[in-house]
Amino acid sequence: MTPEEFRAAGHQLVDWIADHRGRIPDLPVAAQVEPGQVAAGLAPHAPETPEPFEKVLGDLDRVVVPGITQTQSPHFFGWFPSNASLASVLGDVASSGLGALGITWQSAPALTEVEQVVVGWLRELTGLPDDWHGVIQDTASTGILVALLAARERASGYSAARGGLQAQERPLVVYTTAQAHSSTPKAVLLAGYGQENLRYVEVDTVTYAMRPEALKLAMAEDVAAGRTPAAVVASVGTTGTTAVDPVREIVAVAAEHRAWVHVDAAMAGSALLLPEMRSLVDGVEGADSLGWNPHKWMGTILDCSLLYVRDPDQLVRVMSTNPSYLRSGRPERDGDVVQYKDWGIPLGRRFRALKLWFHLRLDGVEAIRARLRRDLENARWFADQVAAEPGWRVLAPVTLQTVCLRHEPAGLDPASEGAALDAHTLRWAGAVNDGGRAFVTPAVLDGRWMVRVSVGAEATERADVEELWALLKEVVRRPAA
Amino acid sequence: MTPEEFRAAGHQLVDWIADHRGRIPDLPVAAQVEPGQVAAGLAPHAPETPEPFEKVLGDLDRVVVPGITQTQSPHFFGWFPSNASLASVLGDVASSGLGALGITWQSAPALTEVEQVVVGWLRELTGLPDDWHGVIQDTASTGILVALLAARERASGYSAARGGLQAQERPLVVYTTAQAHSSTPKAVLLAGYGQENLRYVEVDTVTYAMRPEALKLAMAEDVAAGRTPAAVVASVGTTGTTAVDPVREIVAVAAEHRAWVHVDAAMAGSALLLPEMRSLVDGVEGADSLGWNPHKWMGTILDCSLLYVRDPDQLVRVMSTNPSYLRSGRPERDGDVVQYKDWGIPLGRRFRALKLWFHLRLDGVEAIRARLRRDLENARWFADQVAAEPGWRVLAPVTLQTVCLRHEPAGLDPASEGAALDAHTLRWAGAVNDGGRAFVTPAVLDGRWMVRVSVGAEATERADVEELWALLKEVVRRPAA
Repeated sequence: MTPEEFRAAGHQLVDWIADHRGRIPDLPVAAQVEPGQVAAGLAPHAPETPEPFEKVLGDLDRVVVPGITQTQSPHFFGWFPSNASLASVLGDVASSGLGALGITWQSAPALTEVEQVVVGWLRELTGLPDDWHGVIQDTASTGILVALLAARERASGYSAARGGLQAQERPLVVYTTAQAHSSTPKAVLLAGYGQENLRYVEVDTVTYAMRPEALKLAMAEDVAAGRTPAAVVASVGTTGTTAVDPVREIVAVAAEHRAWVHVDAAMAGSALLLPEMRSLVDGVEGADSLGWNPHKWMGTILDCSLLYVRDPDQLVRVMSTNPSYLRSGRPERDGDVVQYKDWGIPLGRRFRALKLWFHLRLDGVEAIRARLRRDLENARWFADQVAAEPGWRVLAPVTLQTVCLRHEPAGLDPASEGAALDAHTLRWAGAVNDGGRAFVTPAVLDGRWMVRVSVGAEATERADVEELWALLKEVVRRPAA
Repeated sequence: MTPEEFRAAGHQLVDWIADHRGRIPDLPVAAQVEPGQVAAGLAPHAPETPEPFEKVLGDLDRVVVPGITQTQSPHFFGWFPSNASLASVLGDVASSGLGALGITWQSAPALTEVEQVVVGWLRELTGLPDDWHGVIQDTASTGILVALLAARERASGYSAARGGLQAQERPLVVYTTAQAHSSTPKAVLLAGYGQENLRYVEVDTVTYAMRPEALKLAMAEDVAAGRTPAAVVASVGTTGTTAVDPVREIVAVAAEHRAWVHVDAAMAGSALLLPEMRSLVDGVEGADSLGWNPHKWMGTILDCSLLYVRDPDQLVRVMSTNPSYLRSGRPERDGDVVQYKDWGIPLGRRFRALKLWFHLRLDGVEAIRARLRRDLENARWFADQVAAEPGWRVLAPVTLQTVCLRHEPAGLDPASEGAALDAHTLRWAGAVNDGGRAFVTPAVLDGRWMVRVSVGAEATERADVEELWALLKEVVRRPAA
């Protein structure tokens, strides 16, 4: 495809995207397809000769759009916000158009240095310590794995250079809570610690936050049994209820054992853009790393996860490679620059910094902050309505923009009729999602199904939350099918 | 930013990209900046209020473009081709514009099923076994890590569910060669095997390919010493010289110990689109996994790496998570679909399949094959010229499109004056790259610097290779500064 053919098709595609984005409020929120339906709509073999662009574009409407849950919809209240602000989309388009190769500083100095600058901007905007350094990872899952690999090596005296984790004599242990995101236990297992060396520390029964005294006790028991506390993953804004583990207290406990503290603020990191919310990570300066996702609430398009570390040498020591074909042939220069390949798993990296750069510059921080405050107010308003309505309960503190709730019909005893209550909850949540006018996430809390309403899609205004609330009150009254 | 504002800016950006792509042949190939220069050109803080789009676009020209090594240039012969075909750019733009969230099948069925279909297309086009399954990873580095994690778990009897690798009694060993890409030793260390359990198997002195009899011996020695062969990473197209390890023989040796065989065909995978090149992976049906990068020579924009596995359950068993908030609330449906989150490290995934889908459909396979054949012929022509020219040597078999060469000036004895020869090689390679009219990669082979000329940028025609050859012959005659 020549640049001129690209120009023609690109204009069509930009118009298609603008039209599509304009249509999203009217589309069903949940994807409207059965398993296999999308695949059945595609050609069984790749074409030998080029197809017209119009046909490919038509297939976006015909096959792709119905097969997407519209996270950009104002009626999306599922999982967590997954905003894709159009300002950041432009940055992503520029990245694709440039076609830069990020393997070393030398292959694309701008890719490295724009990243250094924008992660610095966001460090400042979120109030993280001045001397921390950041890097863009694809997701928080990867960031947690990177942190737990660095923790593993530090705690094992850099065993990778010798017999690896399999030569470890005192088992290394990782601590988190059962409320942590599933990516934490996954990373613990991938990093080789093993399930038996993963501790789910007790949480407070009201706040669902880690109890530091329980952490202290668990660590002491492990040490007494000949094991070494290697790392703690503290969650700031859990996926279930946006619970906030107390970072300052956790850091103090971990310091006694020189254990790595990683703060998973994947969701809550966006809130740190608001000075009044910084207390969420009080004490973070004593931690070793923190990850958060601009690709969630803040709205820089996926994938864009930030990993900040106190000491990047801890990453470089574990991740670094230096083959001859990646050197510049100018040894005097190779020491002067950051090589982000040594701060994570992949060698080749996209120019992800552009989407942050475009997003912050084209929207401006003031407007982003105003939107986040709007969402916090909408969530508080919604929680107040739920709490005031007979038969409805708010199940966890509303620390951010997510409300966990349950409808408990009159005459149904939650203590003795839990299974019936679960069936009721899943029925009405399913009816909401099937109806297409809103999307919420059922999840389990304390062994019972509940529903998470996560406010914060870029397009969601108060009227949309009001509409959701009216829908919920209506749908729970429908008779079971 | 509203859809209408996006429409206006998007049109400007498409024009900018088309213009930029048209200008690339005239730009210096190597980035033209000193360390810190790009960062110094950026604002020290994020803006509070929106900046005009024209200003951001202007900064692309002012700051970003000079800070990029132009891998899309017809004069780019560095590392490996890193093509970003404009057809695939359109797919990437569509992905960004859609703003889909890939966490489960339910969040975006189209993201999952288009991926299943296009990796199926490419499995068929490359002649891989019909019953293998594929998934898109960001890079081959990650693919190798995923394979070595699956291998670790299979060989340890799924130790992650117990005490992890740190409870492993018989050390697990991984085999590769010193010619393997740096991502292999990195993955071995990250997966916890440890440096002492990584074997660099001897290679043939002419072909630089792994010697299967040396592998057999190394495995026997490890078994005799109480260790367990867990995995072999066979390289098909090494980064240094595009050497090809003999897959069939390696598979036979590994089978005796039930060791996992991963084939790293990051570069050579594109060649498998040509039926006449399929012998590169002869015997692959006996391997466990193979990774290759459409984002290299084939030209689907970075990041787009394919990982094929014989038995996806081996991945799912190691990578799977199933928290309540990611279930559909419809247990009867959850079993019917592929959950790609369980085939790799990240939970959230971009809609990468669209760039493959657009690329294959808008360019057509025939044209892609013709371009690959053009490059193979150009590389053979170039190698013939080098071999025929006094003072020049081709240092390794030209198995693909990369030529490894050295200029050995008359009167300089390579055996006794190696350091002087290295200085000469680095001087003239540096002069080529500094001149801006071409870009090549110096690398070390058998302890001596040489130069890799990797043909295969999408825009590179025979005339560009001829021009490079004239430049090389001229530059080596320049006096040392």
